[in-house]
Amino acid sequence: MILSSGGIDSTTAMAIAKSEGFEIYSLTFDYGQRHAAELEAARNVALALGATRHLVVRIDLGAIGGSALTADIAVPRGRSESAMQSAIPVTYVPARNTIFLSCALAWAEVLEAADLFIGVNAVDYSGYPDCRPEYIRAFEAMANLAIKAAVEGTLKIAIRTPLIRMTKAGIIRAGAALGVDYSLTRSCYDPDARGRACGDCDSCLLRKKGFREAGIPDPTIYAR
Amino acid sequence: MILSSGGIDSTTAMAIAKSEGFEIYSLTFDYGQRHAAELEAARNVALALGATRHLVVRIDLGAIGGSALTADIAVPRGRSESAMQSAIPVTYVPARNTIFLSCALAWAEVLEAADLFIGVNAVDYSGYPDCRPEYIRAFEAMANLAIKAAVEGTLKIAIRTPLIRMTKAGIIRAGAALGVDYSLTRSCYDPDARGRACGDCDSCLLRKKGFREAGIPDPTIYAR
Repeated sequence: MILSSGGIDSTTAMAIAKSEGFEIYSLTFDYGQRHAAELEAARNVALALGATRHLVVRIDLGAIGGSALTADIAVPRGRSESAMQSAIPVTYVPARNTIFLSCALAWAEVLEAADLFIGVNAVDYSGYPDCRPEYIRAFEAMANLAIKAAVEGTLKIAIRTPLIRMTKAGIIRAGAALGVDYSLTRSCYDPDARGRACGDCDSCLLRKKGFREAGIPDPTIYAR
Repeated sequence: MILSSGGIDSTTAMAIAKSEGFEIYSLTFDYGQRHAAELEAARNVALALGATRHLVVRIDLGAIGGSALTADIAVPRGRSESAMQSAIPVTYVPARNTIFLSCALAWAEVLEAADLFIGVNAVDYSGYPDCRPEYIRAFEAMANLAIKAAVEGTLKIAIRTPLIRMTKAGIIRAGAALGVDYSLTRSCYDPDARGRACGDCDSCLLRKKGFREAGIPDPTIYAR
């Protein structure tokens, strides 16, 4: 099972899981995000990579608030890399990976799937605490105490993070080598009315830099 | 903040939190459960106990499946206590407390609330793995690695389980001593069309036994 956002990281992680021989169950969340275009991207990626199932779970994180991605807070634009790394930005969604991994854990138990892939990386990231290796290990330990199948010994959950030590450029090179079509993916936090990537949110800036450093043409059409 | 289901346990935990001087933020989930009457009970309890806010978060756990509470699987009836304790029943919802606590963690960060109350107990319970102390401690450790406020040192999350060592009868006595009106609460997994408790699911049987052993009249109207 893989948490898929339709972005570069989860798509590359999905391609890696497939290359390792895993059957793919793709899990995406409709959580009231501004960038609902990612739901379409996630579906297209699941189809392109031959997923056995693609499940979209609705959860109303907007009711909880606290993020520029779900509430009416402006998405930061045109920030330098040092500015991005100096503080956790307003695009941080409280406990997002924890909520997503918890739902993945529930589906994993239903499917009897032991391997949960998540495309976090702790290098070219936006400073989110729930992308760090120590967080992932703590989640995995908790997961194996949380569910019936783990307690009964029939399922041992492993949280797999194949990208955790990779740079964005390294991720793109790895995916390109596996034949990933990145034109299917979406990264922008705040696409325009025509669905075009804005080009200057943190996520667009990291995406542009990744393709540039990987020496691979960026297939994205940016508004700016 | 307290996870509230409108049942005996979470309502008693809420009364205990209030008696300890906490301001109450009540969090309830609309997760596609069969027993939607619990949503009404949770709201009535929050009003009765003077909660500052009562938030209902919608999450489509029915899409994930795997439980008699959200899918079309029969709820067990008329089971003996030893049968209840011999195996984790089909009313188990995969990773439910993990999903609920994860959402609570998100709201806690938004509110800057450190204390998350959950009315789990490891004595008169239905054998759910996510009610055990070792699970709760693992969740707490993970939570303090997961969120920005914990990593930045402004919030240290504590998962509070005031009922964890109490019997159902002890819980009812403690709540009664604090003035809890248990007629507001609901326990039944499968109420009838008129909203009456069935009287013979595991949850009704544990409720009846709790009142009987506490020596306190059960205000519930049972169909059977």
